[in-house]
Amino acid sequence: MSAETKLKEMGLEVPAAVKPVANYVSAVRTGNLVFLSGQGPFRKDGTLITGKVGADLTLEEGYEAARRVALGLLGSLKAEIGDLDKVQRVVKLLGMVNCTPDFTDQPKVINGASDLLVEVFSDAGKHARSAVGMNALPMNISVEIEMIVEVED
Amino acid sequence: MSAETKLKEMGLEVPAAVKPVANYVSAVRTGNLVFLSGQGPFRKDGTLITGKVGADLTLEEGYEAARRVALGLLGSLKAEIGDLDKVQRVVKLLGMVNCTPDFTDQPKVINGASDLLVEVFSDAGKHARSAVGMNALPMNISVEIEMIVEVED
Amino acid sequence: MSAETKLKEMGLEVPAAVKPVANYVSAVRTGNLVFLSGQGPFRKDGTLITGKVGADLTLEEGYEAARRVALGLLGSLKAEIGDLDKVQRVVKLLGMVNCTPDFTDQPKVINGASDLLVEVFSDAGKHARSAVGMNALPMNISVEIEMIVEVED
Repeated sequence: MSAETKLKEMGLEVPAAVKPVANYVSAVRTGNLVFLSGQGPFRKDGTLITGKVGADLTLEEGYEAARRVALGLLGSLKAEIGDLDKVQRVVKLLGMVNCTPDFTDQPKVINGASDLLVEVFSDAGKHARSAVGMNALPMNISVEIEMIVEVED
Repeated sequence: MSAETKLKEMGLEVPAAVKPVANYVSAVRTGNLVFLSGQGPFRKDGTLITGKVGADLTLEEGYEAARRVALGLLGSLKAEIGDLDKVQRVVKLLGMVNCTPDFTDQPKVINGASDLLVEVFSDAGKHARSAVGMNALPMNISVEIEMIVEVED
Repeated sequence: MSAETKLKEMGLEVPAAVKPVANYVSAVRTGNLVFLSGQGPFRKDGTLITGKVGADLTLEEGYEAARRVALGLLGSLKAEIGDLDKVQRVVKLLGMVNCTPDFTDQPKVINGASDLLVEVFSDAGKHARSAVGMNALPMNISVEIEMIVEVED
């Protein structure tokens, strides 16, 4: 099943690309690789999910935030390549969790993004990744993820 | 206008490549991509800008530190490829700000680097990026940035 | 001397690939590049080295942890490409040290990984890298490193 069809079946709407908050762009393609800028978790209403996981957010809320980030990254990717069915492979995520120094479940938070990508792209969605804790993120967003994707010629 | 000419017009001198502080190198080229090691902010006199943004440094001082890092990265890039006019595209920055846990303006700090790169390379300088907060950086430097650049064959 | 021979000479056994703790994979190859997931430091007995460097671990213990991570990364790489002699170049490390906010010797910790890679691969092991401090890592591991490697066609 195509990624575009799968997203429809899941009832998920890929948002428009996030507008960068400064002098940079959401995505750069070089050869067959697309490097996507780090993004935060936008709710459907366009507001940001903020706060530190382990203090202000539960693990479950962190997971949902990471899922929202992944959906937003697909929006930026679609704006760059036109059609998500051109994705050959999700190569790599760097998943960064805004958290307290004693929080150690970053992988379970970033699973929110990883699970979505595998649901949408199946085997082509299986990526390398790091999931780590940050002491501070822009605008106090709870999760920031950057992504590298291999696309068709 | 060429990047080299633009730098002269801006009155900016690209420094010599920073000598790595350990068993690694400043830059590795693979295919058309150059991966640059993370660097800190050197002042013109060769000393490092240190301290946490939000506590020891203001936002403006952080911005200036990020600009100094970008200039240093161009020094390492020039040492690797010989001529900055061979740059096809600045692909990606990971901008890391040494800051307090409640600091949330990392994008405004890393703009110091992004703005310089766009000034020097125009559209080819527009990159993907992440700007995030770190609880600690080497030698207590205020900003560390690593960069990926696409260069001519 | 080949990397495989060198490892034997050093008396080092490359472990089996670490099983990812979630919905992702240890390595993704795209073109000639292999992107390896961030990994933690496993002791020979399979337990993880945990705690914050500067509080729970000394610098020397951090160095040893980083060395263990590098060995584990070689295990994941070997599982992906079959033979470590196919390595053309270690391109890039992102070395993340779980540490207190006042710890500033991240480069000396990550040298544990860099030194091992240069011992094993000689000049082909010389990589670009960043070495930075994190406020929290998964399962409280002391060091996490992700790696990009260029391999033969």
